[in-house]
Amino acid sequence: MKGLAMLGIGKIGWIEKEKPQCGPLDAICRPPLVLAPCTSDVHTVWAGAIGERTDMILGHEAVGEVVEVGSLVKDFKPGDKVIVPAITPDWGSTESQEGFPQHSSGMLAGWKFSNFKDGVFAEYFHVNEADANLALLPEGVDPVDAVMIPDMVVTGFHGAELAGVKLGDTVCVIGIGPVGLMAVAGANKMGASHLFAVGTRPNCVEAAKFYGATDIINYRAGDIADQVLEKKLRAEV
Amino acid sequence: MKGLAMLGIGKIGWIEKEKPQCGPLDAICRPPLVLAPCTSDVHTVWAGAIGERTDMILGHEAVGEVVEVGSLVKDFKPGDKVIVPAITPDWGSTESQEGFPQHSSGMLAGWKFSNFKDGVFAEYFHVNEADANLALLPEGVDPVDAVMIPDMVVTGFHGAELAGVKLGDTVCVIGIGPVGLMAVAGANKMGASHLFAVGTRPNCVEAAKFYGATDIINYRAGDIADQVLEKKLRAEV
Amino acid sequence: MKGLAMLGIGKIGWIEKEKPQCGPLDAICRPPLVLAPCTSDVHTVWAGAIGERTDMILGHEAVGEVVEVGSLVKDFKPGDKVIVPAITPDWGSTESQEGFPQHSSGMLAGWKFSNFKDGVFAEYFHVNEADANLALLPEGVDPVDAVMIPDMVVTGFHGAELAGVKLGDTVCVIGIGPVGLMAVAGANKMGASHLFAVGTRPNCVEAAKFYGATDIINYRAGDIADQVLEKKLRAEV
Amino acid sequence: MKGLAMLGIGKIGWIEKEKPQCGPLDAICRPPLVLAPCTSDVHTVWAGAIGERTDMILGHEAVGEVVEVGSLVKDFKPGDKVIVPAITPDWGSTESQEGFPQHSSGMLAGWKFSNFKDGVFAEYFHVNEADANLALLPEGVDPVDAVMIPDMVVTGFHGAELAGVKLGDTVCVIGIGPVGLMAVAGANKMGASHLFAVGTRPNCVEAAKFYGATDIINYRAGDIADQVLEKKLRAEV
Repeated sequence: MKGLAMLGIGKIGWIEKEKPQCGPLDAICRPPLVLAPCTSDVHTVWAGAIGERTDMILGHEAVGEVVEVGSLVKDFKPGDKVIVPAITPDWGSTESQEGFPQHSSGMLAGWKFSNFKDGVFAEYFHVNEADANLALLPEGVDPVDAVMIPDMVVTGFHGAELAGVKLGDTVCVIGIGPVGLMAVAGANKMGASHLFAVGTRPNCVEAAKFYGATDIINYRAGDIADQVLEKKLRAEV
Repeated sequence: MKGLAMLGIGKIGWIEKEKPQCGPLDAICRPPLVLAPCTSDVHTVWAGAIGERTDMILGHEAVGEVVEVGSLVKDFKPGDKVIVPAITPDWGSTESQEGFPQHSSGMLAGWKFSNFKDGVFAEYFHVNEADANLALLPEGVDPVDAVMIPDMVVTGFHGAELAGVKLGDTVCVIGIGPVGLMAVAGANKMGASHLFAVGTRPNCVEAAKFYGATDIINYRAGDIADQVLEKKLRAEV
Repeated sequence: MKGLAMLGIGKIGWIEKEKPQCGPLDAICRPPLVLAPCTSDVHTVWAGAIGERTDMILGHEAVGEVVEVGSLVKDFKPGDKVIVPAITPDWGSTESQEGFPQHSSGMLAGWKFSNFKDGVFAEYFHVNEADANLALLPEGVDPVDAVMIPDMVVTGFHGAELAGVKLGDTVCVIGIGPVGLMAVAGANKMGASHLFAVGTRPNCVEAAKFYGATDIINYRAGDIADQVLEKKLRAEV
Repeated sequence: MKGLAMLGIGKIGWIEKEKPQCGPLDAICRPPLVLAPCTSDVHTVWAGAIGERTDMILGHEAVGEVVEVGSLVKDFKPGDKVIVPAITPDWGSTESQEGFPQHSSGMLAGWKFSNFKDGVFAEYFHVNEADANLALLPEGVDPVDAVMIPDMVVTGFHGAELAGVKLGDTVCVIGIGPVGLMAVAGANKMGASHLFAVGTRPNCVEAAKFYGATDIINYRAGDIADQVLEKKLRAEV
């Protein structure tokens, strides 16, 4: 099969690889629906995101179609349209049992695509523990929207969760690319009252307001912390 | 001064009392703006909410005006329009230090109005630790709206906080009077995805939907848990 | 193979069953080392602990020996001596992913032995997801001690965890059978300062003190709460 | 009265000051029992711990005697022997209400002694909100032991609390001076199973073991993280 791979640091290209094998818990998918590139793909090629890789197929954001499932898979069958998360943990590992599936079987090692195995920019890709790591694409949801879920939405929302946003909190999100915007949305959904977003690109600023930012901070206009504290103070008077 | 008091279990009436004294941390307010009766006032008179009281002035929801402040009060002065919380803790008590101000100085003893001292249905009422227990009425906020804050909003929101609602949770709020409606609003603001509200009165059902309920359960139509599980199951298919 | 089974409510006896099959993630063990009966086995026979069962082999506390492992098992091999937890979750299930492995695949359904499949009181027993659900018996640990881990220790400790014991807390454990004693030990290890244990049997009272109880309450001597509050009050004076 | 003061950066000396005034909630104490110097006193003089100070009396660890109390103080009277915490918050402040008394009325501003008012190295010192900020010295407790509580014990224990140590956790404490040793003790009391302590002085190493350290790391023997991971790995085999 063909795949778009990182050949080594600083070099990408199409390569030919064996179609992946399907274990009893796994699924093989193909990405006929939607794929999205991530800045992390760029990082990976540029400098090795979590280590240098050779001839590793890139990509970890996909809405795909199941073409084969293992004998123990119960919830999916060939033909199912599925949302494929960027992080596909080993759920039985000690780290997952302790609540850190993203680090299952090693630091960041829940992020398998294009790091510990080939990614989704290929004719076929492999999903471990399919029942635990795939979600059916709900009817009526556009795959183009859904492909934002595997990484952009959940990474941003998890940032808000890690920050422990509580009702009425003041939150500042630095950077309003897709993940930052989803951190704005997550903080808003968790009940932030005063929600600063730091960025300058007009379309991102508009999106940040749409997702719940109450104040926009331009990092070119001075120190971010100073600007936040000043606006906060003014709001409390 | 005059006040509307619980004379004893089952009996209310206007009584005459001394105007309360102002300690160095305290404020004396009068309620020229808005008062609201609470079902708890009814409970108190009916059966003694947290104990039987005699000649105790009722009421714990007020937007009032400060008429006197103690020598150590820094943030308020006579003439200020203030929102008065139903719960006015002793903030230095062990219970408050441990994070339970509502139980400061004893079980439920943060609820002083009409329990441990006279309430707000009087010409004047006393607020302990004014700097810690009063909030300025923000400009542009209608006192009629603001009077929902001292008990209805915060009690409902705190219910959602105690439930530990997380992004994407399924929540069921049983009862959609004012506090229940604010629990619906709180759970919605904290990120509930599937939000059941149990009630039947058409205006409350409409309000529950406005505040974020995704499903209404009629408790007359069968067991509440069965109805929730059935709707939940159907939604997941 | 032979097994000691619940034949139905109120009836136990030895029965003959097929040796269990080993799936790719599983292990088959035999219990040559130590088994322990649990009061839950008695409950199960008496009234059906989580439902009535027929010809279901009992037992969920074992230190055993692995006799067979599936093709995907990495950490265990035949001959390994293992501690077998009472609860053997499906780690990829939604409930486990959300932090409730004991309820994986359904309410209490992480408790499979003698509920959803045959238990350990048999010549052979089956362990699902062996890598995730078995622990090697450490060298030098007596299996007779180790068999307290699968249920007594972890259930008592988890009770203390669910109670959220913090440094300096006052804790009361009602009942000092094996699980209660381990709740005493867990609360003590989590930093309780004042640790009440309620019970009367002299050997249990002695054990409770050994595990950290600072006060023993005799439930025959009056209301438990009254006794705790009185002792607490006296200690604070 | 006399006091040992920071005269400015890098300069200390005895100075003469007015005896502090006692407000209605406050106490005036004298330190006839025990005082302890803290490395923070040294930092403060050396470089200004949280800002440069002039003629500021030093010291924030004391077991003293009450000589005067304000009219609203209920729990203390002249002659009481008291443990005086290093941090004496304004308990009604917004920060305290939100659970951060150490930052009451401003970043680190709960730490008043020798920062926002004169410290305890004087003939008399002032304690704000005496009922909330003093503790009676229990009978039978040596003041020399008790003076470790105001800063060393609580700072170390709070470190363990902030780290969220849970039953069975692996914890590494870097530095085993008095606060580090109390972080070891705190982590041990909260249930750490594997407790690394980093230090070299023989008396501190011995104390760390006494307080629960299971492994000592010598930072001169190589990278701390490498040593911890290696020992951890070896322990798990």
